[in-house]
Amino acid sequence: MVLAKVLGTVVATQKESTLQNLRLMVVQPCDGEGQQLGAAVVAVDAVGSGPGEYVLYCTGSSARQTAVTNNRPCDAVIMAIVDQWEIEGTVKYRKGE
Amino acid sequence: MVLAKVLGTVVATQKESTLQNLRLMVVQPCDGEGQQLGAAVVAVDAVGSGPGEYVLYCTGSSARQTAVTNNRPCDAVIMAIVDQWEIEGTVKYRKGE
Amino acid sequence: MVLAKVLGTVVATQKESTLQNLRLMVVQPCDGEGQQLGAAVVAVDAVGSGPGEYVLYCTGSSARQTAVTNNRPCDAVIMAIVDQWEIEGTVKYRKGE
Amino acid sequence: MVLAKVLGTVVATQKESTLQNLRLMVVQPCDGEGQQLGAAVVAVDAVGSGPGEYVLYCTGSSARQTAVTNNRPCDAVIMAIVDQWEIEGTVKYRKGE
Amino acid sequence: MVLAKVLGTVVATQKESTLQNLRLMVVQPCDGEGQQLGAAVVAVDAVGSGPGEYVLYCTGSSARQTAVTNNRPCDAVIMAIVDQWEIEGTVKYRKGE
Repeated sequence: MVLAKVLGTVVATQKESTLQNLRLMVVQPCDGEGQQLGAAVVAVDAVGSGPGEYVLYCTGSSARQTAVTNNRPCDAVIMAIVDQWEIEGTVKYRKGE
Repeated sequence: MVLAKVLGTVVATQKESTLQNLRLMVVQPCDGEGQQLGAAVVAVDAVGSGPGEYVLYCTGSSARQTAVTNNRPCDAVIMAIVDQWEIEGTVKYRKGE
Repeated sequence: MVLAKVLGTVVATQKESTLQNLRLMVVQPCDGEGQQLGAAVVAVDAVGSGPGEYVLYCTGSSARQTAVTNNRPCDAVIMAIVDQWEIEGTVKYRKGE
Repeated sequence: MVLAKVLGTVVATQKESTLQNLRLMVVQPCDGEGQQLGAAVVAVDAVGSGPGEYVLYCTGSSARQTAVTNNRPCDAVIMAIVDQWEIEGTVKYRKGE
Repeated sequence: MVLAKVLGTVVATQKESTLQNLRLMVVQPCDGEGQQLGAAVVAVDAVGSGPGEYVLYCTGSSARQTAVTNNRPCDAVIMAIVDQWEIEGTVKYRKGE
């Protein structure tokens, strides 16, 4: 899974019918310090995340293993909102601080 | 999923029989500002997109989860035409503007 | 899918039994101008392609969705020989010219 | 599979229900000398690994082929703790030394 | 598939039970000239390869399509030992020479 920050949203009315009612989020992968890393991707939101939050997203066929993405043409899904992470014993991020 | 711009088309008459009647598009991944990012790929069109439009494409086994790509040797499919995206509260693209 | 040029062949007699009788080709990914892009890979040929031709190859589980690669340890398959591609209205390649 | 060092942990209370009770680890891919290589990822722990240990993690659909990750939105799993590796006849790492 | 050279081995006693009795090899991807290209990965050996040999390895779900890797958390498998490859009509490698 990839640690990422939710940056924004994408609106698309003309799409595969199975994609109706899914929220499409722009997410920015980040490193262990929370700094931007590589290119942003678009992921389906499965956990009610919002812009500004740190999340985990999952890619590939595993991105279809959620209730909202099952059997859909989705290759990236936000499946967790991050509360905290730590690296080598140091808390690098704690939500709300 | 990847945000991309449709650049053109590919014609291939000699191909796997299951690929008949699919439209093959050249798509250029782009970043949150709509700028070119990395290498172009070829994706099957599942939504009637055309050159110049911004789209989302989906990769891997998830690219086979559309009516037109099911059970076919396709690893990238355009599954949505983008109307608008926004990053950190700013609209970066709105179709037709 | 990836646009690529067939560069050569690989011979391997000691291999998984399910790989008997498959042609293994060295293919070089290329960009929209037909120029070399990144590293060459080895792909199974499913369409009778030969060195010097531009082709499309497909990766991942989708590479097993052809008659010759079904259920085999193959993660890249040539599934189309390219006749022509165009970018922003300009023909960049036409076979035989 | 990728050789990596376990760096830390991620806590996420709001997540897909199928992800309850999984341990999420930050792992840093490394090269044959044990040096950092590319970006850290988040992997589910399936073998009781801890920070500081060298492990192997597995990605994609294969990451769901463990008892703890089966049918879950997980695209990276730690499936082995490394005791030793050697390159060209030289032991590069031995656990506990 | 990726052309690679077998560099060494990995020993891991604490691992997913389904991984017992598999040989884990360190393989170095290489280019058409046989030169090192990118980072080494760890692959399961399905063909009796050894250090110093050039091989092909296969990734993703396709890596589970061998007798030894079926249903196991394995995302890279060596499925062929290379005897020879040629690029643009020139033999670049022939085993034993």
